[in-house]
Amino acid sequence: MSPRHLSRSEFLALTGLLSGATLWPRGASAATPSTTPVPTGKPATVTPKPSPVSTAALRRSCRAALAPGAPVDPGAELIRIGEWIQSRGLEQDFYGNSAFIEEFEARLAKLLGAEDACFMPTGTMGQLIALRIYADASGNRNVGMHPSSHHVLHENNSHEVLHGLRDVLIAPWNRPVLGSDVRGARESLGTVSVELPVRWLGGQLPTWAQLEDLKRTCRSRGVKLHMDGARLWECQPYYQRSYADICRGFDSVYVSFYKTVGALGGAVLAGKRDFIRSARMWRHRHGGNVFQMLPYVASAAMRLDDALARIPEQVRRAKLLAEALAADERLTVLPRPPPTNMFRVYLRGDPAELSARRDLIAREDKVWVANGFGPTRVPGVSETELQVSDELGDVSEEAAAQAFRKLLSPA
Amino acid sequence: MSPRHLSRSEFLALTGLLSGATLWPRGASAATPSTTPVPTGKPATVTPKPSPVSTAALRRSCRAALAPGAPVDPGAELIRIGEWIQSRGLEQDFYGNSAFIEEFEARLAKLLGAEDACFMPTGTMGQLIALRIYADASGNRNVGMHPSSHHVLHENNSHEVLHGLRDVLIAPWNRPVLGSDVRGARESLGTVSVELPVRWLGGQLPTWAQLEDLKRTCRSRGVKLHMDGARLWECQPYYQRSYADICRGFDSVYVSFYKTVGALGGAVLAGKRDFIRSARMWRHRHGGNVFQMLPYVASAAMRLDDALARIPEQVRRAKLLAEALAADERLTVLPRPPPTNMFRVYLRGDPAELSARRDLIAREDKVWVANGFGPTRVPGVSETELQVSDELGDVSEEAAAQAFRKLLSPA
Repeated sequence: MSPRHLSRSEFLALTGLLSGATLWPRGASAATPSTTPVPTGKPATVTPKPSPVSTAALRRSCRAALAPGAPVDPGAELIRIGEWIQSRGLEQDFYGNSAFIEEFEARLAKLLGAEDACFMPTGTMGQLIALRIYADASGNRNVGMHPSSHHVLHENNSHEVLHGLRDVLIAPWNRPVLGSDVRGARESLGTVSVELPVRWLGGQLPTWAQLEDLKRTCRSRGVKLHMDGARLWECQPYYQRSYADICRGFDSVYVSFYKTVGALGGAVLAGKRDFIRSARMWRHRHGGNVFQMLPYVASAAMRLDDALARIPEQVRRAKLLAEALAADERLTVLPRPPPTNMFRVYLRGDPAELSARRDLIAREDKVWVANGFGPTRVPGVSETELQVSDELGDVSEEAAAQAFRKLLSPA
Repeated sequence: MSPRHLSRSEFLALTGLLSGATLWPRGASAATPSTTPVPTGKPATVTPKPSPVSTAALRRSCRAALAPGAPVDPGAELIRIGEWIQSRGLEQDFYGNSAFIEEFEARLAKLLGAEDACFMPTGTMGQLIALRIYADASGNRNVGMHPSSHHVLHENNSHEVLHGLRDVLIAPWNRPVLGSDVRGARESLGTVSVELPVRWLGGQLPTWAQLEDLKRTCRSRGVKLHMDGARLWECQPYYQRSYADICRGFDSVYVSFYKTVGALGGAVLAGKRDFIRSARMWRHRHGGNVFQMLPYVASAAMRLDDALARIPEQVRRAKLLAEALAADERLTVLPRPPPTNMFRVYLRGDPAELSARRDLIAREDKVWVANGFGPTRVPGVSETELQVSDELGDVSEEAAAQAFRKLLSPA
């Protein structure tokens, strides 16, 4: 069975398995539904699931983490944002309207080479809005996407039930969407949405030539091309081009502020002026016009430049860490080398037992080797998502890999 | 022509006329679209529209305001919230999931007499979700509502285009929805949504007997009853009953935190446990799972008790102010007496000229007599919404009325 023929239910079964899920209680998260209980067949050996609080405390006690996401002190962070706002004398916004927010949106539009941009409370909202606008304009509700797309895996089918859109899975699971997928699609496509880089493939990217072919193909066929740039920031070192160059040829781009940038939340949708004017109305329709948005926007604005400047070094270290791990034949790393600061590791073991070993390593070595583990379609093989961030600290890549390898030894 | 026969386009024409709109730039606000330019026929006398910044500065220079909404210092407010969070040792949430947010939701559920509650980024989102859940469950997409309902006037028809719902306007413009409207509806209703109090009627409320009749009517007919409680807090002094008593008989209730409570934003939707579990999924589908919600929840939590405690005195003063204004026969006050802390005043004058006089009064008397003025269907008559808040300060109601009356004299 080729990866192209993974069934929809198989894809959906993966939604509960995202790295990091064990840190977060209750299942209402946007990108990280909580882990579905995994039957182990060995109830006597199942480690009790640690409470979120104790897991967070254990994690905080570590001097290094191979995957980001340590909870911050939320009060201190708000005070920092408040002082930043005061130091600039910023005015309160009303429903996202203020001179400062307009300036930030203009700054992002310029950075992404777009005519205009609109701040969104979430990427989920921004991307749904983009696809809806294109479908209404063309009358074609088919959206070509990758089977690991956020719409398919992480939004409870909102594109279908809220916007009447149909996802057409045009690429196999195990590589990014290419121009040939669009040319070979068996259904008429109004829009194509591609994630750059592809999170579920460990941050894989099309080559520049492949990306340009995809852009040309969509343009020549009158298919709207949208970018899920949730991690666009992280792929600049691979392409060695400006964000505007990478985005040129896309009709719209979404970027996120709470992941690598580390802001409180929020996203930006960028595109043509008319498109963004329409997107603002749809933000309102989605219930996204939060009364005061300045806390989110300021949090992103004060962090963006620094966060982007640190990415090249993170990508460099990710390559070293990935190779150090891949040197152990019991570990499979995807992709090699990682083009961004993230990658995936596949290893033998049961997710619950691996989590218990992770906690043991955290106690003994003060290294947080993974956020969470999910089962794969290969019996006995689990996966985890690693990503180099500031939280890797000053441990060497070899020492980090050594700590990770302790997952392979029985506790 | 009876008020029942106001056309939809007439209702919609009112959407640009909300009080306060002149303070806020750009038209993307949720409840307060910016004022539509009003042709005066006398271009030579039109006062140039003041910039939002100068209007805000002028407003801040006043010692008293008859309508709330003075911009706050957003940095200082965030620092205050941050310190409040630190003093309680609260943990960061992930997508709205944290022990503190669960506690807050449980507290609101109890206050409103509901089984469960869910924090929402906006009331627009929460209410759309409630109506969608009921429509999907019953298969009936007709929602009975008042012609001034937020869905009809302020959401760009989101209930239609996002959720496929049909508004059935069951009551005349000039009084709240009653049980007899439900009994007399000419179409089958799946849900009835009523605003308590009705903002566009100056905060009018049904009597307790009328409210109980409405609840009984809906229950006996199997019609779901939802409350738009954007200003529910303000109607407790009128009913002299607990919030739980007022809400009993409603299937769901939305309450707001950024209006009288003064929080950064956000709302709560309360209802039965299954309903709220479903609402959480729909919040995700709407793109409402903002990464960190604690700033908003904490902002509401730290203000709620104090804000509610101040309302009875505000209602008392609103009655005095309304009567002081109504004593001048050139002013028409709706309703008399006001059951809440808000009411409307109708007066002769062109909105732009009235705004210019308001600014003059602000400069001379340091009293901000109104936020904005909108035209009505009566030629030459404008309206404004007043609401007693802490911003009325220590001026007497008579002095406040005297300042307001200066609007009637040529500048």
